[in-house]
Amino acid sequence: MDHTHRAYCQNVSPGGYIIICTRREEDWVPLTDEWDRPSCWRTNCFKMGINTVMIMAVLLGVSLTPSLTTQAGLSEKVLVFPYETDFSFVALIPQKEMGLRAFTLCMRVATELPEERQIILFAYRTADYDELNVWREKDGRVSFYLSGDGVFFHLPPLSTFRSSLCLTWESRTGLTAFWVEGKRSTYQVYKPGHSIRPKGTILLGQDPDKHLGGLEATQSFVGEMTDVNMWDFVLSRSMIQAWHYGHKVPKGNIFDWGTIEYELSGNVLVVDDD
Amino acid sequence: MDHTHRAYCQNVSPGGYIIICTRREEDWVPLTDEWDRPSCWRTNCFKMGINTVMIMAVLLGVSLTPSLTTQAGLSEKVLVFPYETDFSFVALIPQKEMGLRAFTLCMRVATELPEERQIILFAYRTADYDELNVWREKDGRVSFYLSGDGVFFHLPPLSTFRSSLCLTWESRTGLTAFWVEGKRSTYQVYKPGHSIRPKGTILLGQDPDKHLGGLEATQSFVGEMTDVNMWDFVLSRSMIQAWHYGHKVPKGNIFDWGTIEYELSGNVLVVDDD
Amino acid sequence: MDHTHRAYCQNVSPGGYIIICTRREEDWVPLTDEWDRPSCWRTNCFKMGINTVMIMAVLLGVSLTPSLTTQAGLSEKVLVFPYETDFSFVALIPQKEMGLRAFTLCMRVATELPEERQIILFAYRTADYDELNVWREKDGRVSFYLSGDGVFFHLPPLSTFRSSLCLTWESRTGLTAFWVEGKRSTYQVYKPGHSIRPKGTILLGQDPDKHLGGLEATQSFVGEMTDVNMWDFVLSRSMIQAWHYGHKVPKGNIFDWGTIEYELSGNVLVVDDD
Repeated sequence: MDHTHRAYCQNVSPGGYIIICTRREEDWVPLTDEWDRPSCWRTNCFKMGINTVMIMAVLLGVSLTPSLTTQAGLSEKVLVFPYETDFSFVALIPQKEMGLRAFTLCMRVATELPEERQIILFAYRTADYDELNVWREKDGRVSFYLSGDGVFFHLPPLSTFRSSLCLTWESRTGLTAFWVEGKRSTYQVYKPGHSIRPKGTILLGQDPDKHLGGLEATQSFVGEMTDVNMWDFVLSRSMIQAWHYGHKVPKGNIFDWGTIEYELSGNVLVVDDD
Repeated sequence: MDHTHRAYCQNVSPGGYIIICTRREEDWVPLTDEWDRPSCWRTNCFKMGINTVMIMAVLLGVSLTPSLTTQAGLSEKVLVFPYETDFSFVALIPQKEMGLRAFTLCMRVATELPEERQIILFAYRTADYDELNVWREKDGRVSFYLSGDGVFFHLPPLSTFRSSLCLTWESRTGLTAFWVEGKRSTYQVYKPGHSIRPKGTILLGQDPDKHLGGLEATQSFVGEMTDVNMWDFVLSRSMIQAWHYGHKVPKGNIFDWGTIEYELSGNVLVVDDD
Repeated sequence: MDHTHRAYCQNVSPGGYIIICTRREEDWVPLTDEWDRPSCWRTNCFKMGINTVMIMAVLLGVSLTPSLTTQAGLSEKVLVFPYETDFSFVALIPQKEMGLRAFTLCMRVATELPEERQIILFAYRTADYDELNVWREKDGRVSFYLSGDGVFFHLPPLSTFRSSLCLTWESRTGLTAFWVEGKRSTYQVYKPGHSIRPKGTILLGQDPDKHLGGLEATQSFVGEMTDVNMWDFVLSRSMIQAWHYGHKVPKGNIFDWGTIEYELSGNVLVVDDD
């Protein structure tokens, strides 16, 4: 595993904050030109094997799109992250800036990953800060971080079956809660007065590292995600329950799954939600 | 942590049985005048920083009321105890004296505290006795004490989601049961013939220590409580189930959440029940 | 246990790939003519004690049929594998060849076997390959093998109560999922492009060993199986849920429990489904 190897890099951030260099097992050939992370880093040295990917996509019969192509709308679709990688992710492009003083983030998520495995569920990062991260921690708790120390919740474990998970936070009071299958956790008071900074990059599947955007396979998401929606206000209990049961609710004004703009990278499948 | 520090004390008991001295992390300054517990104890040396608290309340945008101000009515409200402290509590003022030979006590409660943590759920104390305490014990059992040895029940664990919990006891037979989500535990026979003494103080959030009323952070309640009601008789199964489902039942004649008189102390938030 | 003993062998495979030699505890007498596996193997040396079995069947009041008699239709019937053996199984004869590029396999299954015990749930074998095996593994996971390394799922544990279990796989995408009580597990991508080979033998209750078809008691199924159905396509979510709830669905075109052709061997009881 200490072969030198080619790297495929791309700028995944509108503001240029995060440039990702991917490598794939099949690309690991003993080359003489070593992967030069630093030089690759601040230049958009993207040279992904688009043809290879498209041939694979045809073989798989699923929509596997080369990176950097922005697509829109995932209604009735599920994102499948089939393997543990340090290069597969989906970048989400918000409808409005992420400068937020309140939000509701909802998703449906299923994973086969073992209980003691750390899992990134949502990552929003600006140049200098992990602005808004949601994790399943090693000890099984679900955590929420706003640029600094996080807050931890004991929730029913994520499993191979789909869980509906929402997170609400409001700066004014700091009241923070997770909602599992429409049921609210105990409130915790977290960072009252804080503002989330705009102009960052949102990733599903990977956590961009503080140091030059490096991704770690052991933190990656493996499993299925669907119905990721985000609002810039706190939804009421009845709204969150309506969303859980698939009833009509106000469309997410930051993300709306039906019209969401996204970029796929690496091995992520978009499959029909049966 | 062995700094000398200012102490803010108050008489929280109508009969003067319990005087609480609170201290807050931010007040811990190396002063030369040491906190003189005994002298402070039997005099109401209350000098709480009311302005500071009110400024905080404004910042938080929630009703955080300075101590000793009795308020009434918590309909549609939840008490949030956000942190582990030895100074945050809610004193409840009963509508009638607590000299009881039977009762039903109901509440809805949620907590993120770890399983092996002792938690005070309800404390009623007179001058010399812990008259009526309800605990979640270190071993996860829920216990009930009437001035002396307690009785222990294996109930479904308290969790981040709200549990509805009732306790019924009748002196004549000693029949004692907890009711979780409207389902009765096995009866145990506990202290038949006993009478609960009147004129004590009722606290949520803290257990007043036998020795001069000191509070222990490691026993404090952290989480949410709502819908605390108490009757001086044993409610029927159908009544308890009706209460569980939020249907109309006879109003608690000791406490009725809609009209309950209470005094907040320390960091306790009163938030809307979404 | 190293007595020499008589062996009862039979060809259970239409193509003659698998010949099973059974032995029963009560047959283990110290004979001088040793069990000659190889010579027995390729000849159908079946000489089962039919009378004994039939007397047993009468005593038990259940239909216990001697091997090699093909029967059809198990509507409202349950297969009971009462003991751990290396000789009890049910061979299933498919309505069409098992050369498959997609399938749905469903069954209802209950077992008292301990959690750490490996259990074969379905075995389809051709001459050289374990074409399609479903296992409950020692670590509790449920696994699916297509001639080679398998794929593993964390499902709710099998128990003394009947679980409804389906498995779907499609060659085109490799998308693979188990369905428990009608709920789909997380998809995994497994062997896209693979084809299952036809003309093998399907067994319930035992896993035919790669080496000359030997069976291992410690892998055998003990418990109940019913409603085993198989289709050569992937059923939709709504179909699988309908099947789970016992509603009408398209009949399995590989196996349909109501008309299924099967051969019982060893101690397998066919009892009415109460």
